[in-house]
Amino acid sequence: MPKKILMVTDDAGESLEVYYAKHRFLEAGYQPVIAASVKKRLHGVIHDFDPDWNTYVEKPGYLIESDLAFEQVKAPDYTAVLLIGGRAPEFLRHHRRLIQIVQEFHRRDKWIFSICHGIQILIAAGLAERGGRKNHHGPDLGKPPGILPAHF
Amino acid sequence: MPKKILMVTDDAGESLEVYYAKHRFLEAGYQPVIAASVKKRLHGVIHDFDPDWNTYVEKPGYLIESDLAFEQVKAPDYTAVLLIGGRAPEFLRHHRRLIQIVQEFHRRDKWIFSICHGIQILIAAGLAERGGRKNHHGPDLGKPPGILPAHF
Amino acid sequence: MPKKILMVTDDAGESLEVYYAKHRFLEAGYQPVIAASVKKRLHGVIHDFDPDWNTYVEKPGYLIESDLAFEQVKAPDYTAVLLIGGRAPEFLRHHRRLIQIVQEFHRRDKWIFSICHGIQILIAAGLAERGGRKNHHGPDLGKPPGILPAHF
Amino acid sequence: MPKKILMVTDDAGESLEVYYAKHRFLEAGYQPVIAASVKKRLHGVIHDFDPDWNTYVEKPGYLIESDLAFEQVKAPDYTAVLLIGGRAPEFLRHHRRLIQIVQEFHRRDKWIFSICHGIQILIAAGLAERGGRKNHHGPDLGKPPGILPAHF
Amino acid sequence: MPKKILMVTDDAGESLEVYYAKHRFLEAGYQPVIAASVKKRLHGVIHDFDPDWNTYVEKPGYLIESDLAFEQVKAPDYTAVLLIGGRAPEFLRHHRRLIQIVQEFHRRDKWIFSICHGIQILIAAGLAERGGRKNHHGPDLGKPPGILPAHF
Amino acid sequence: MPKKILMVTDDAGESLEVYYAKHRFLEAGYQPVIAASVKKRLHGVIHDFDPDWNTYVEKPGYLIESDLAFEQVKAPDYTAVLLIGGRAPEFLRHHRRLIQIVQEFHRRDKWIFSICHGIQILIAAGLAERGGRKNHHGPDLGKPPGILPAHF
Repeated sequence: MPKKILMVTDDAGESLEVYYAKHRFLEAGYQPVIAASVKKRLHGVIHDFDPDWNTYVEKPGYLIESDLAFEQVKAPDYTAVLLIGGRAPEFLRHHRRLIQIVQEFHRRDKWIFSICHGIQILIAAGLAERGGRKNHHGPDLGKPPGILPAHF
Repeated sequence: MPKKILMVTDDAGESLEVYYAKHRFLEAGYQPVIAASVKKRLHGVIHDFDPDWNTYVEKPGYLIESDLAFEQVKAPDYTAVLLIGGRAPEFLRHHRRLIQIVQEFHRRDKWIFSICHGIQILIAAGLAERGGRKNHHGPDLGKPPGILPAHF
Repeated sequence: MPKKILMVTDDAGESLEVYYAKHRFLEAGYQPVIAASVKKRLHGVIHDFDPDWNTYVEKPGYLIESDLAFEQVKAPDYTAVLLIGGRAPEFLRHHRRLIQIVQEFHRRDKWIFSICHGIQILIAAGLAERGGRKNHHGPDLGKPPGILPAHF
Repeated sequence: MPKKILMVTDDAGESLEVYYAKHRFLEAGYQPVIAASVKKRLHGVIHDFDPDWNTYVEKPGYLIESDLAFEQVKAPDYTAVLLIGGRAPEFLRHHRRLIQIVQEFHRRDKWIFSICHGIQILIAAGLAERGGRKNHHGPDLGKPPGILPAHF
Repeated sequence: MPKKILMVTDDAGESLEVYYAKHRFLEAGYQPVIAASVKKRLHGVIHDFDPDWNTYVEKPGYLIESDLAFEQVKAPDYTAVLLIGGRAPEFLRHHRRLIQIVQEFHRRDKWIFSICHGIQILIAAGLAERGGRKNHHGPDLGKPPGILPAHF
Repeated sequence: MPKKILMVTDDAGESLEVYYAKHRFLEAGYQPVIAASVKKRLHGVIHDFDPDWNTYVEKPGYLIESDLAFEQVKAPDYTAVLLIGGRAPEFLRHHRRLIQIVQEFHRRDKWIFSICHGIQILIAAGLAERGGRKNHHGPDLGKPPGILPAHF
């Protein structure tokens, strides 16, 4: 079984979610690959809580290198896909190739994880309504890969 | 007929949308009233386009004083409601009292306008599916009140 | 009569003033043309009020594309000129070609509007002392074009 | 054996290091407790890499609630201490009570971990010269707790 | 002769100008006293040059404690007054008490220095037209106190 | 004797320290030359004090042009070297050529000044332990060159 995990994000992706997952996957022996609409240095964001705000606040976050563009992704090479949150999924859900990728992961019975706003991509792919593959969580990856709760 | 127009926004509301509408309503002889989850100095945001980003960028915007909290809004006092965009509607759509207000505007056959992400509140109120009241645009207000397109 | 209106600003121009005027002119059926010392993506600024400051605060604002450089402006093509405020007029008033343009608008009996610090350019052009053309406000444009007060 | 782990940081602590460790400890069944010079909402920072800089760049990071002040720390309650990096250790190394705490962890033969600039505190405590307790890494915590490399 | 020098600034004062002058006066054996419209922690600004801007850019600068409010200033206590630049003089020139102070310095034949935009206050006080007291520069202070050129 | 003074800084150098020294040297008749690891527009920083922080806060500061790279420095051309503070010395102390330069200044019995964190470079050069050349302060430069205290 391939040990690569596809991580989906872009400009405005939540940078702590990206780096937690990336380093956690590495720690568990997997190879995380970050895909975005283009290969570039992405502007990650911070979604944080400030007592003077009635909702979360968005600030510039870590800069994140994407490893490849969605066009270069070959689903069979990966064990799982993780859809990162933040503000990126709001526009990524309209990316045709990405939706195809996620649907192919579903058809091939691969793991599909989403965190926070990442679920918007699952909804666009028509996979959220049926409960997704939540029941598959965990076993194949040994112990669950330590995904962060939506806002922590 | 009352000449007051209710403007709905909060922290993370798009500040240009707020100020364009506010001054345009004043110019047309209406009295804009800004309502939010609480009466306070709101942190408006800028949603702008930067060529180095694959999506819009969010920056701190104008500070905006809200005139009253949703709890104090009495629908009969207003001719229309305008649901401002930006990131605020994402959490405002879960505000029970606001949803009731919008639904009361609908029941009382008052104008309901939304701009950009403001439509999220209409959807939460169950008013977007049926085409809303788009056909009512304009006449009562003389000429249309100059609402900005979603992203301009 | 030409339906084009020349808008004068540059880096450090007040971005709400720019966008309010631009969209308001469009709404009224005019074609706004933004001129600056060079054609480029301008750094608009926010001039806002913060209770912890004894004067207004300046923050980064909207990015604004200028349509042409002052060198390319032909006064006969326009009905009016609007001198936008913010911090830009402080250096624009020293721009020789701009001063000539404004003086040509005056000689040709065209509308000259200024907002906030924009008046610094009128002063440099020797047009503010004589009361300008304030008395001309409005009629030709149908109703006044909804220029914002200096600080609102 | 107690399942609490003491995390040491303060204003200017690297916020990704704090949150990676905190959530990773939780995932491994430990209870992280964040101590600082005072109990407050700390200003975490981002230490990131920008191609236009010859060294790392510091930006505002996540806000982090400290759970208690160093004065309230009782070493016997904890299994380990983790000294977080960023810019905070530069001034924390002069905090007398903190140095005593770290030395007590050493005397009581508890785990002492440091990350990045956190080693400055170990040096101030006189524990870095002798190789520290590196050899103790891991066993008691089952598998190593996934501490991030200094800059990742 | 008193060895105190009055420094005039406020929020949006140029912070490098403030600190250069303050430390330079101290070095020369004078006691600088910073006066503002109120005694508070002032928000100094940076006026800097960025190649992507057609004019200078304003950024947040150093925080500066003012020592007293203009109301508490007694002109006879000082040898000289220095009017700091930045954006502060734009509103300070309308401060009645400040104008009186500057005029009293003039009447009492004390030194009056201004830097950059500080001259706006001299103009408002009616002292710039007559060439000011430029000819007095230097002697009493030994060598000139090292005032920075307007933009350096 | 040469009248040039070498100023050592880089990205993250404290910008007030740079500009105070530069203008003060000019005022005293010396020619300051700013050297960095490369010749470029450096990102100076502000190290300031904010009552809500337990340590100093770092913010973007003035942009500073370096005049040459360390590789081009010829020690005999200079009377003195000033090691600027801020965060830059943390990585500059590992710059081999810079360490050689500082040691050559020492061997040639030239002035070596450091300010704030600049001492980290002296330590790396093996010159701080022996008390440096503190006793040489001043005479050759007439009066001491007005170096700022570490944090002022």
